[in-house]
Amino acid sequence: MLIIGESLNGTLTTVGQAILKRDAEFVVQLARSQVEAGAHMLDVNAGVAGGNEVEDLPWLVSTVLAKVDIPLSLDSADPEAIRAALKLCRGRPVINSITGEQSRLEGLLPLVVEYDCGVVILCMDERGIPETAQDRFEVGRSLVERATQAGVKADDIYMDPLVMSLGVDWRAPTVTLATLRLIREHIPEVHIVSGMSNVSFGLPKRHLLNCTFLAMLVAAGLDTFLIDARDKGLMASLWAAQALSGSDRYCAVYLKAYRAGQLEV
Amino acid sequence: MLIIGESLNGTLTTVGQAILKRDAEFVVQLARSQVEAGAHMLDVNAGVAGGNEVEDLPWLVSTVLAKVDIPLSLDSADPEAIRAALKLCRGRPVINSITGEQSRLEGLLPLVVEYDCGVVILCMDERGIPETAQDRFEVGRSLVERATQAGVKADDIYMDPLVMSLGVDWRAPTVTLATLRLIREHIPEVHIVSGMSNVSFGLPKRHLLNCTFLAMLVAAGLDTFLIDARDKGLMASLWAAQALSGSDRYCAVYLKAYRAGQLEV
Repeated sequence: MLIIGESLNGTLTTVGQAILKRDAEFVVQLARSQVEAGAHMLDVNAGVAGGNEVEDLPWLVSTVLAKVDIPLSLDSADPEAIRAALKLCRGRPVINSITGEQSRLEGLLPLVVEYDCGVVILCMDERGIPETAQDRFEVGRSLVERATQAGVKADDIYMDPLVMSLGVDWRAPTVTLATLRLIREHIPEVHIVSGMSNVSFGLPKRHLLNCTFLAMLVAAGLDTFLIDARDKGLMASLWAAQALSGSDRYCAVYLKAYRAGQLEV
Repeated sequence: MLIIGESLNGTLTTVGQAILKRDAEFVVQLARSQVEAGAHMLDVNAGVAGGNEVEDLPWLVSTVLAKVDIPLSLDSADPEAIRAALKLCRGRPVINSITGEQSRLEGLLPLVVEYDCGVVILCMDERGIPETAQDRFEVGRSLVERATQAGVKADDIYMDPLVMSLGVDWRAPTVTLATLRLIREHIPEVHIVSGMSNVSFGLPKRHLLNCTFLAMLVAAGLDTFLIDARDKGLMASLWAAQALSGSDRYCAVYLKAYRAGQLEV
């Protein structure tokens, strides 16, 4: 089980401003608070309107790594920005993400191989996001084959079944869950990663929906969580879901979280 | 989707005392509060230590039905108590429950047929509760065949995959979920019923575990819920889970619950 802190995301207003202003203190504090809350890896996204990702992403990476020793998930579709960031990383980062879109695939997959790192594979291609679970799974599977043939190990692959908004399409979450189950059944050797907050976009009581969907995703086989680790309610749901899905032997992690007061929400 | 209120249960101390004392006011109030909270049916269990089920169950049934117009789930293993209660019921009650235990099966199945009512089938027999999902499913399937051959319609059958304590066996919830998926896949025409509070027995933060497990059960295909309908947190999780599992077209029920303040917990 891997928790990737999602909060260093330049598309969020406060984070975007901090990146443009080169506010290192803000960035380091946000990195530290996620690690203290339980994140094992941090996603870094410098996609700020009005910014320059090729400079902003390396700044973000070096700013975090100057103070926090943690693996990073480099969140960009720009090969030049990713390459500049990779040169600054210690350990083995994850590139987030490739798709079946030709330019993105051909720009990023060689970097995954060259830098021997992990990679998030979104189950979509030039034609967009497939509507049915079977089609979405097939697109993802063909991308896994491409990556594997290029030399990427299955254990370094994180497939994303794509969480869409329930408010926009009331069948969207069932397609995501069905895609996830197909991946788990047919490609058990890869990791499956997802955020869940998209699911509640535009609906009331988003936290209730996010926590409930998290439980469903865990039961279907999700093992890598792109979440706000500082969200105590969501983390409590995660510990509970891990215990209930047989991923937490003797409930040891759940009971430890309870004793540490992490289930008080 | 059917919500069966679980709270009129004589094994709970306060309810048991009310039954022994023939406290009709207490019983009617408990019945009404569950219906007002959203229960579509009420489970009635007169299994009180020191009581006489053959007299207590009919008293409980007639007391509820004198004031509340709702279908009942008659919760007993005693054919004599069930028959006495059936004679008092209006509409179509559910008999809760039969198992593969010979005396229970032969005592209760003929009553299901004679009174043309619904029946809960527990996935267990003389040998106890099977440990693996496959075995538990097979026991349940053979009981469904027995019931069907006796003339019971699939739509009147509620299979219970049996929820056991996570604290006693950390793999127990996964066996329940796997059993549920096997039933949904191979016998899609029956209903599947379950409570969830057993899962958290003996562990801290039971409500968190119950709500999280409810979400997993819904995603796996549970459609009939034996719960305390007065538990607002659990009901909110139920509305969210229904919406996220594609059982709530356009989230109409979820949004209605929100507007009615039923998602405030």
